[in-house]
Amino acid sequence: MSTIQIKRALLSVSDKTGIVPLAQQLHAGGCEIISTGGTRKKLEEARIPVTEISSVTKNPEAFSGRMKTISFHIESALLFDREKDATEAQALDIQPIDLVVCNLYPFAKVLAAGADFETLIENIDIGGPTMIRAAAKNFKYVTVLTSPTEYDEFLTEYQSSKATTYDFRKKQMVQAFNHTADYDALIATTMSRHVGEAGVRFSFNNGQKLRYGENSHQPAKMYQNAQGTYSLADMNILQGKAISYNNVLDITGAIDSVKNGQRQSCAVIKHSNPCGIAETDHQRKSLELAWAGDPISAFGSIIAFNTPVDLETVEFFELDHPDKAKRKFIEVIIAPKFSKEALAYLTHSKNLRVLELDLAKLPQSQEYRLMHGILLEQAPDKALYQYLESKTQKELSIDKNKGLIEFGLQAIKNIKSNSIAIVTQLGDQYCLMGMGAGQPNRLIATKLATDKAKDFIVHQFGDNPQTIQKYLAEAILISDAFFPFADNIELAAAAGIRQVVQPGGSIRDKSVINKCNELGMAMAFTGMRHFKH
Amino acid sequence: MSTIQIKRALLSVSDKTGIVPLAQQLHAGGCEIISTGGTRKKLEEARIPVTEISSVTKNPEAFSGRMKTISFHIESALLFDREKDATEAQALDIQPIDLVVCNLYPFAKVLAAGADFETLIENIDIGGPTMIRAAAKNFKYVTVLTSPTEYDEFLTEYQSSKATTYDFRKKQMVQAFNHTADYDALIATTMSRHVGEAGVRFSFNNGQKLRYGENSHQPAKMYQNAQGTYSLADMNILQGKAISYNNVLDITGAIDSVKNGQRQSCAVIKHSNPCGIAETDHQRKSLELAWAGDPISAFGSIIAFNTPVDLETVEFFELDHPDKAKRKFIEVIIAPKFSKEALAYLTHSKNLRVLELDLAKLPQSQEYRLMHGILLEQAPDKALYQYLESKTQKELSIDKNKGLIEFGLQAIKNIKSNSIAIVTQLGDQYCLMGMGAGQPNRLIATKLATDKAKDFIVHQFGDNPQTIQKYLAEAILISDAFFPFADNIELAAAAGIRQVVQPGGSIRDKSVINKCNELGMAMAFTGMRHFKH
Repeated sequence: MSTIQIKRALLSVSDKTGIVPLAQQLHAGGCEIISTGGTRKKLEEARIPVTEISSVTKNPEAFSGRMKTISFHIESALLFDREKDATEAQALDIQPIDLVVCNLYPFAKVLAAGADFETLIENIDIGGPTMIRAAAKNFKYVTVLTSPTEYDEFLTEYQSSKATTYDFRKKQMVQAFNHTADYDALIATTMSRHVGEAGVRFSFNNGQKLRYGENSHQPAKMYQNAQGTYSLADMNILQGKAISYNNVLDITGAIDSVKNGQRQSCAVIKHSNPCGIAETDHQRKSLELAWAGDPISAFGSIIAFNTPVDLETVEFFELDHPDKAKRKFIEVIIAPKFSKEALAYLTHSKNLRVLELDLAKLPQSQEYRLMHGILLEQAPDKALYQYLESKTQKELSIDKNKGLIEFGLQAIKNIKSNSIAIVTQLGDQYCLMGMGAGQPNRLIATKLATDKAKDFIVHQFGDNPQTIQKYLAEAILISDAFFPFADNIELAAAAGIRQVVQPGGSIRDKSVINKCNELGMAMAFTGMRHFKH
Repeated sequence: MSTIQIKRALLSVSDKTGIVPLAQQLHAGGCEIISTGGTRKKLEEARIPVTEISSVTKNPEAFSGRMKTISFHIESALLFDREKDATEAQALDIQPIDLVVCNLYPFAKVLAAGADFETLIENIDIGGPTMIRAAAKNFKYVTVLTSPTEYDEFLTEYQSSKATTYDFRKKQMVQAFNHTADYDALIATTMSRHVGEAGVRFSFNNGQKLRYGENSHQPAKMYQNAQGTYSLADMNILQGKAISYNNVLDITGAIDSVKNGQRQSCAVIKHSNPCGIAETDHQRKSLELAWAGDPISAFGSIIAFNTPVDLETVEFFELDHPDKAKRKFIEVIIAPKFSKEALAYLTHSKNLRVLELDLAKLPQSQEYRLMHGILLEQAPDKALYQYLESKTQKELSIDKNKGLIEFGLQAIKNIKSNSIAIVTQLGDQYCLMGMGAGQPNRLIATKLATDKAKDFIVHQFGDNPQTIQKYLAEAILISDAFFPFADNIELAAAAGIRQVVQPGGSIRDKSVINKCNELGMAMAFTGMRHFKH
């Protein structure tokens, strides 16, 4: 597996970044440079000697540039086997080309700029992929560079030896096929849309081993999108154990629960469901209230904030408490930023994963799921409600409760169905008092949520029955989907709930409204279901 | 947007299926045929006149076939604009090629056959993609066929007019880019592995609109894998409303719950969780027991079987009951097959989706999830346990209970975490008596499962307290993960449970075992967690 001297190079790039310094180095090293069109002009302006491609192809540049490089001579020079085809190459007057530097017509760029169909077609590169693929196939002898980001590493190899190693060329071969695969994938997806067919092509690179999958007998990896757009893989791991597959699922649930918060939001996640969420003007208070949503489940949870985290907040965990049992153990903490003091404090818990992530930069794309050979695609669930309308004799004041209802709908969107959330306003603080998640029937979800809401009140305000009744009466119970029967209302009322928000839309809405009226409860409809699975 | 006469065609195929009849028709229509290597030989054997490609390229076939078609003449003939480049083409002696029939070196086939690295590299086609992509770019004038499955449709166009329409050529252009994109995606993924980098590239086609996504304000689609392997998209929809996104999620849960059943399995699914599963020697009995797992949730559920469904089974739903309230309404029923009589009976419920699906043919691939710009990959959770060992003074007999424990572990694998399942054996019938799913803490899951198991017993055998105790004592409670504290054991014992199976592995295993011993309970460990999210 030998090194190969770079004596003759073909440079033909759409993105001209760094091409002049690269060519200067090649020229200084004694390498002949063949070039085309715009690249040639650029190099000649920099006074770098260039062999015009026509003199190699023996053909003119033709058809408004559609034909420049494709020729028997160029592709032969890239493809022939330097050992067994040597005599044949000599007989055919083919001189080897050792290096191809090529990137493609900017299809992605013109697409993003909203180009028309004709322009898109004109920006499909034919000669470029041919050269790149030919060079990559023959990587045993030929080096291929498809991005300016690769020039530095190449020059390091080149400057020391005027050559490249087998391993470098092999790595570049892989890059080359990644490049042409992703190029045609984008063309295929775009063109499919133009004929009314729907195709989706995904490319992911940089697969990193995770600690394990959902369970330790399942090996797992995390990949980043090949477009290199900001993603979860860009999270900055400031301390702690390696991230696991379940961590990533929980982190996703945590991010989704706080990213739309209007003020200081905090969410506590267990098994992808938020079991506590709060929004206040004070970060520490948000954490305290989110934790109180389910203090049993909060142990070993994943916690996310939508704002930079300070020391006062993390001191809540009492990680340096002399009584270890008093320390609040959590798995992961995520925020856009941590103060130096907060970070120093978190080192008390060595295994705790501390992650910085810019929530606002994450892509707002379609949602996808893969299973059993198919792909499911859906638009994300962005809206909260179609309308807010009180439907009962006792009015649920929308004006007075709008902020809280929106907080509650945002919460229910991130809790797995069937779900019930009970939210309340304490002063100007919003919080989730209790939730029931992932239930096959809504009655159980209601029971779970009311039980937890009671625990919350007892924990916060003591177990005086009147106190419990007061806070339950002030709270709002939110359902992710309509109530199919009035039995849920009876159950909620028996627990002390007086205010309900739900989508409506059942054929039995009338009997549900009647039941509220009979029990003196207030109920509003939103016209929008929020199932999540 | 005119039709284009096919006067000159280039045929160069790796897969020779159907190429002779196609060429015969082209020849009969007066079309000149240019061909290469093996394709040319095949056509000449069938006495079809062929123009040797070298006479067009003006170059020899060189370098053991690495250079055959790539040339100024061939790609010019494909790429030049028939209108604005006409004079230039004439001056350069370029004759148009109107049709390219080409499929590529069988990289996928040699890969599947376990070829070595050298063979893989040799099977990367360079000339083929160049021709296909050039023809596709110039689809305004050129027709491209990349698969034998496209020949019939082409011949229908050709035979009537010796030409193709713009719409046909445009559709073929999309097919062509799909083909080259998928070809390079496979090469890129394969080669990445050879340099120790992990990349994944997915291709999905045939996006079909679903009724809607998780909710009606979220448009959604279902795509099939571009490899065309058997998938959920191949399910045969025998009757009923259009499939929704949530249906597909539930169908997946349903399939996973029955596909490994050893006998007649039936699962009842609500919000992707099985709320009832049973396995017996009698299909109708399996349905009855699965339904009994949670008769409230079973209304509106998705039901799957692993064996062909007969009339006796579906009559359980009483879809023709004169009292509509007695009819058991379900959303979807799935099985490998339905008898004619069963199908006729199911027409009583017009909206019910009846789906045939060959569970055994579904791919057993890695599992993938997409979120926030990343892809998660994990091996599927195939195993059930590392070992089965009784850990308590009172022995849990593994020999006697092995079948039931395996049934229970299979069930827990498909219930979302934290989960508890209570399973029992009635004669030789296995069934899920109760489950708690998707809970942030295990205590709630245990409470949900024991409550449901009691309901099951009351429903099946009446509410005599001794009867309830007897059946609970005979049942086995299965936990998807270890018990972090002994409190779960106390809760289970208080409910009447006497037998427990769990992975073990907590630092407090000893105190959990002690608690079982103190309460006279039997408990076995499996050494294998089954989280599912």
